[in-house]
Amino acid sequence: MPGNSFGHTFRLTTFGESHGVAVGCIVDGCPAGLPLSVADIQHELDRRRVGQSKVSSQRKEADEVQILSGVFEGRTTGTPIMLVVYNGDAKSSHYDTIKHLYRPGHADFTWDAKYGFRDWRGGGRSSARETIGRVAAGAIAKLLLATVGVQIVGYTLALGELRAQVYDEGEIERNIMRCPDPAVAEQMIERVEAARRSLDSLGGIVEVRARGVPAGLGEPVFDKLQADIGKAMFSIPAIKGVEFGVGFDVIHLRGSENNDAFVRRADGSIGTASNRHGGILGGISTGEEITVRLAAKPPASIAQTQQTVDQQGNPSAIEVKGRHDPTVLPRLVPIAEAMLALVLADHLLRQRTARVVPEPEPSSYPSEYV
Amino acid sequence: MPGNSFGHTFRLTTFGESHGVAVGCIVDGCPAGLPLSVADIQHELDRRRVGQSKVSSQRKEADEVQILSGVFEGRTTGTPIMLVVYNGDAKSSHYDTIKHLYRPGHADFTWDAKYGFRDWRGGGRSSARETIGRVAAGAIAKLLLATVGVQIVGYTLALGELRAQVYDEGEIERNIMRCPDPAVAEQMIERVEAARRSLDSLGGIVEVRARGVPAGLGEPVFDKLQADIGKAMFSIPAIKGVEFGVGFDVIHLRGSENNDAFVRRADGSIGTASNRHGGILGGISTGEEITVRLAAKPPASIAQTQQTVDQQGNPSAIEVKGRHDPTVLPRLVPIAEAMLALVLADHLLRQRTARVVPEPEPSSYPSEYV
Amino acid sequence: MPGNSFGHTFRLTTFGESHGVAVGCIVDGCPAGLPLSVADIQHELDRRRVGQSKVSSQRKEADEVQILSGVFEGRTTGTPIMLVVYNGDAKSSHYDTIKHLYRPGHADFTWDAKYGFRDWRGGGRSSARETIGRVAAGAIAKLLLATVGVQIVGYTLALGELRAQVYDEGEIERNIMRCPDPAVAEQMIERVEAARRSLDSLGGIVEVRARGVPAGLGEPVFDKLQADIGKAMFSIPAIKGVEFGVGFDVIHLRGSENNDAFVRRADGSIGTASNRHGGILGGISTGEEITVRLAAKPPASIAQTQQTVDQQGNPSAIEVKGRHDPTVLPRLVPIAEAMLALVLADHLLRQRTARVVPEPEPSSYPSEYV
Amino acid sequence: MPGNSFGHTFRLTTFGESHGVAVGCIVDGCPAGLPLSVADIQHELDRRRVGQSKVSSQRKEADEVQILSGVFEGRTTGTPIMLVVYNGDAKSSHYDTIKHLYRPGHADFTWDAKYGFRDWRGGGRSSARETIGRVAAGAIAKLLLATVGVQIVGYTLALGELRAQVYDEGEIERNIMRCPDPAVAEQMIERVEAARRSLDSLGGIVEVRARGVPAGLGEPVFDKLQADIGKAMFSIPAIKGVEFGVGFDVIHLRGSENNDAFVRRADGSIGTASNRHGGILGGISTGEEITVRLAAKPPASIAQTQQTVDQQGNPSAIEVKGRHDPTVLPRLVPIAEAMLALVLADHLLRQRTARVVPEPEPSSYPSEYV
Repeated sequence: MPGNSFGHTFRLTTFGESHGVAVGCIVDGCPAGLPLSVADIQHELDRRRVGQSKVSSQRKEADEVQILSGVFEGRTTGTPIMLVVYNGDAKSSHYDTIKHLYRPGHADFTWDAKYGFRDWRGGGRSSARETIGRVAAGAIAKLLLATVGVQIVGYTLALGELRAQVYDEGEIERNIMRCPDPAVAEQMIERVEAARRSLDSLGGIVEVRARGVPAGLGEPVFDKLQADIGKAMFSIPAIKGVEFGVGFDVIHLRGSENNDAFVRRADGSIGTASNRHGGILGGISTGEEITVRLAAKPPASIAQTQQTVDQQGNPSAIEVKGRHDPTVLPRLVPIAEAMLALVLADHLLRQRTARVVPEPEPSSYPSEYV
Repeated sequence: MPGNSFGHTFRLTTFGESHGVAVGCIVDGCPAGLPLSVADIQHELDRRRVGQSKVSSQRKEADEVQILSGVFEGRTTGTPIMLVVYNGDAKSSHYDTIKHLYRPGHADFTWDAKYGFRDWRGGGRSSARETIGRVAAGAIAKLLLATVGVQIVGYTLALGELRAQVYDEGEIERNIMRCPDPAVAEQMIERVEAARRSLDSLGGIVEVRARGVPAGLGEPVFDKLQADIGKAMFSIPAIKGVEFGVGFDVIHLRGSENNDAFVRRADGSIGTASNRHGGILGGISTGEEITVRLAAKPPASIAQTQQTVDQQGNPSAIEVKGRHDPTVLPRLVPIAEAMLALVLADHLLRQRTARVVPEPEPSSYPSEYV
Repeated sequence: MPGNSFGHTFRLTTFGESHGVAVGCIVDGCPAGLPLSVADIQHELDRRRVGQSKVSSQRKEADEVQILSGVFEGRTTGTPIMLVVYNGDAKSSHYDTIKHLYRPGHADFTWDAKYGFRDWRGGGRSSARETIGRVAAGAIAKLLLATVGVQIVGYTLALGELRAQVYDEGEIERNIMRCPDPAVAEQMIERVEAARRSLDSLGGIVEVRARGVPAGLGEPVFDKLQADIGKAMFSIPAIKGVEFGVGFDVIHLRGSENNDAFVRRADGSIGTASNRHGGILGGISTGEEITVRLAAKPPASIAQTQQTVDQQGNPSAIEVKGRHDPTVLPRLVPIAEAMLALVLADHLLRQRTARVVPEPEPSSYPSEYV
Repeated sequence: MPGNSFGHTFRLTTFGESHGVAVGCIVDGCPAGLPLSVADIQHELDRRRVGQSKVSSQRKEADEVQILSGVFEGRTTGTPIMLVVYNGDAKSSHYDTIKHLYRPGHADFTWDAKYGFRDWRGGGRSSARETIGRVAAGAIAKLLLATVGVQIVGYTLALGELRAQVYDEGEIERNIMRCPDPAVAEQMIERVEAARRSLDSLGGIVEVRARGVPAGLGEPVFDKLQADIGKAMFSIPAIKGVEFGVGFDVIHLRGSENNDAFVRRADGSIGTASNRHGGILGGISTGEEITVRLAAKPPASIAQTQQTVDQQGNPSAIEVKGRHDPTVLPRLVPIAEAMLALVLADHLLRQRTARVVPEPEPSSYPSEYV
């Protein structure tokens, strides 16, 4: 069973290597009738693009997406949506000298163990360029979610021990760290620049929130909402931990402290007075905000000399040249948003078959969808 | 797409409600020729059974498993293995008085939101009894993994702020907390008994390790080993966080500190000098020990009176009677082991199709498999 | 990837061997709220049961189904529906003497080639008893289809060269051949009895029709309606050919003769003036009656002595004792109906996600579903 | 669940519309290490291309394939293989005048019923251009099958009542009908030209054979080899019937006549003395030649004026201009071969997990695969 597809009803398959001809994806299962343009997708790709700031690497790529199928007269047709980004600025010669060495923290060794050999140019398919297909597909998922009022926002919560103390959503896209606390963002930027100067890299935490998610999404056993989101997040390169709501801190709470009381809201609907559960109970959305956090490791590619072995196991020093990100956090934000959007779009559609008599849909879709 | 199956090649489908007729599962895709007996499965079910100690609830159930298909003359035949446990000691009357109320921290509200109604007896399918099918299937997965030398061990790492300081594997199954540090185990037991007396509950951390996993398992993009294990763990009730290797602490390390150096081992194979990566790089096993940690919330069922609403949103106090676990940790251990075993068994089989010319299998299987 | 599941959204997994403990299935993905009783399922199982007439074998089995999960207070809950039939009257000793021989026309040799060994008792899992799970699941699918007005009817169209000349639907269940032409049914019965006397067996054709199928079901590329129905029918033991509408006779028609003209019906809807296409165009239902025919081979089990080899390839004569059907046709009818129902139920649910704004459902469901 | 993917372990996803930007596919699950070049794929695409003879339509398209990913230094890497063919010579203006009319025998009406609207240019995704992705993927499947000695050959067996009487395999690719009987091929060509002159079209039968298939492929219940092949064939546009071995004629044979006797071959292996079963018993390959036949309807596009309705149901005459094939048979041959190859490649890989101790692979792979 191949592993390059994600989702059941809204389903993504990605392809492409870092220094191959192109990267991209097929989105299968997007319902017919969704307004969709290249600009919708390009906007999200621009958010993840490298070379966009001094905290990211200097590699220059336009990452211009083309839609090869599935859209007619500005709307999705229900057929597969093929999205392709041709690779441009790829210098494989950086890698030629180290192709027989196993870069520490990278997937070179494990790919050889799995397949017997690998496309060593730029990390091949283990490159973060693979996430272009995800972000492109996630842009479509976000549009589908918007039809029922779901919004997704992600940001850098922490870099090392530097952690946002203020949550000002309007600030997120205004600073290159995508941190909702502008003062801490400044400190983060200094820290990243220092790391670059010392030829090192830094990890941190990204948080993503989804608002307006209707209660009832998620399948109660294996495809719990947190299970599918958890898988989505752990499928992103460099993620070492994922948590929901209060997360690992839940171990410091008693049941009587952790249980969120159910209440009736002003509009008559049922909700919870607090949201320690992070928007999911029993694997199913409660209607409260879904909150998930991801711990990203410091990028494995650093400009320092490191000790390793070659393919025969002979000890060797290695210098990984090329253009490295001292931190992945700002670029991780749109990727994590995309993965959350993909899971929610999938479950939004899956929920349509939960009852013999379907749940009432929103009383009126915005006119552009009708 | 229904959500009650797990795995691609080694595939599990569970069924059953807490107070229904039976719970169990079908395992499809287990290769032919694996020696399998009822005792192999019963052993693992006994490990997860309630009523087994003073830190767990007092409900008495034998949980005797029957094999209805798929085994012939003591070996699996390649056909579906149907495992069933008939439900015994179920007192639904406890729940009759609260069936219109939403228990805080439980899935009652979200199930109603999803399906319009629910089987309210004993939590229905959202009960932890659903995990019986998982543990039974996991027992088979463990046997399959053992044919290539993989071993799995789980234990309670932390209860609240109490954390094992010593790792003595032989102690794990000797104390009722399944903690590898016998002194800390004693403290944990006292803490649990105090929580029971105060009608409250406690969360904690379970850690699971897999040893002897061959390098090369896992699919590099969406079905990364950590993604599938992450999904597996988040599909267990009550889990709020999952981490691998150094986990969330990775944010306090620099790339130069976090990268594990590759080395040649005494036997000529390639490994890493340290294991901060937790046995997985690029989504593929490295051959080092796989380590994963799960944060479990304090059980939502507590004997205290709590505030909630009924199905119409009317405020109401609720007392959840019945038999409650003050902590799920010791019972979580075999469940988490089972989920890890299911993922690894699936990827062990999936790996057989990674190359045109299959990798050499172990030079000699133990004679009982041939 | 194991092969014992069928369907995507309405999904069936069967288990069980002929002389094992039990046979049955799990239905996953049935929406919540469908009225369902044991009697609904038992009715269909009784239709497929052996020992029911002189044209079928004499084996006596009650085939009593139990529902182990997924139904609460008379309605489906959205959780897996587990159905089990315990095996009763199984005499394996018939098979003991031939367990090393390959029965001509049977799966003994191919199972050994696949798995290395097999459960030889009563054909093991290759027995037609496996279809019990399908018929049980199909009964649920039929109920789901009935909520939108779909009806399915199957019958014996031909036994050898004897072919029904009259279509009187009321006659089908009145004769033991399930033939809509009562006069031809009498001839068929005589022919079957003669075959039994000569220790031989006969093949024939079953036709199944689905009425009231809404236009729009089916996915246009690989999961065309005829592709999924074709797979469903070819998955039934003994089927050697499947055709839709005019079927193989289409080769004798010119395009101008074969194209069905579109017309406006009296109720304003669009249909076709003729139905040579058998209710499906481009893989999608047209709203016309779906018609499919299956060619079933004469049962391989015959009481005559036959030439074969043993597992080592040594020539040997074989006498297959036991209770044989001289024809499978009457029992094939409910099996084929079940498979058609499973495909249509699956696509009925899948169709709910075809559009961003879902299609209007039937203006009013019958009151029992609301 | 979207319907544009096929296969489990060797898995194809196609995309593209007739007059969109491009058509193509992603092949996921192809094992690493298979030698693969553009020429291997182009060869098969050239075989299916239109404009290749007087019996096919006059549309000129180069159908040049590009490999965008998954191949490195001439070998597959185990990652998704992305294949794209940009659309060239597409004149949508032909269709502009009939976009509101439902072409008889076409999918226009059913697509509208399903999705609410459709890409009407050149039939959109219901065009036979969708099969380009299949043929491209099938070329890879054939290469994989060749590593274990499997060969696939297809041909036109019948056009209307004209049926090949001679089987000379060397003749197939020498005549434009791809008929193994050169004399009958001549008659077929005359018949097709006459049909073109009378503005009409003709159906027929294509047969495909697979040789060298190892015994043991296929899953015994729902994923029987004939079930998956049957689905594959019915997923090809225009197919109304599929049969294996003796096919529908099986109804004229008694069990004693139809059962193929098992024998020991000269090389010591076990086979059958005859092959009425068409290479499959119990859903699993026997090692004999697999034979399958497909009945293709006469193409729905004919140049005659036909009666139909528009989208509102108003009666209207329609003239379908453009370039029509009077028969699809010669082009159907490589498509049917591709679909058979895709199923067999998938089951070849799936078979690797049937046993705990894998079956011995061919003792020596040709040196180019090692």
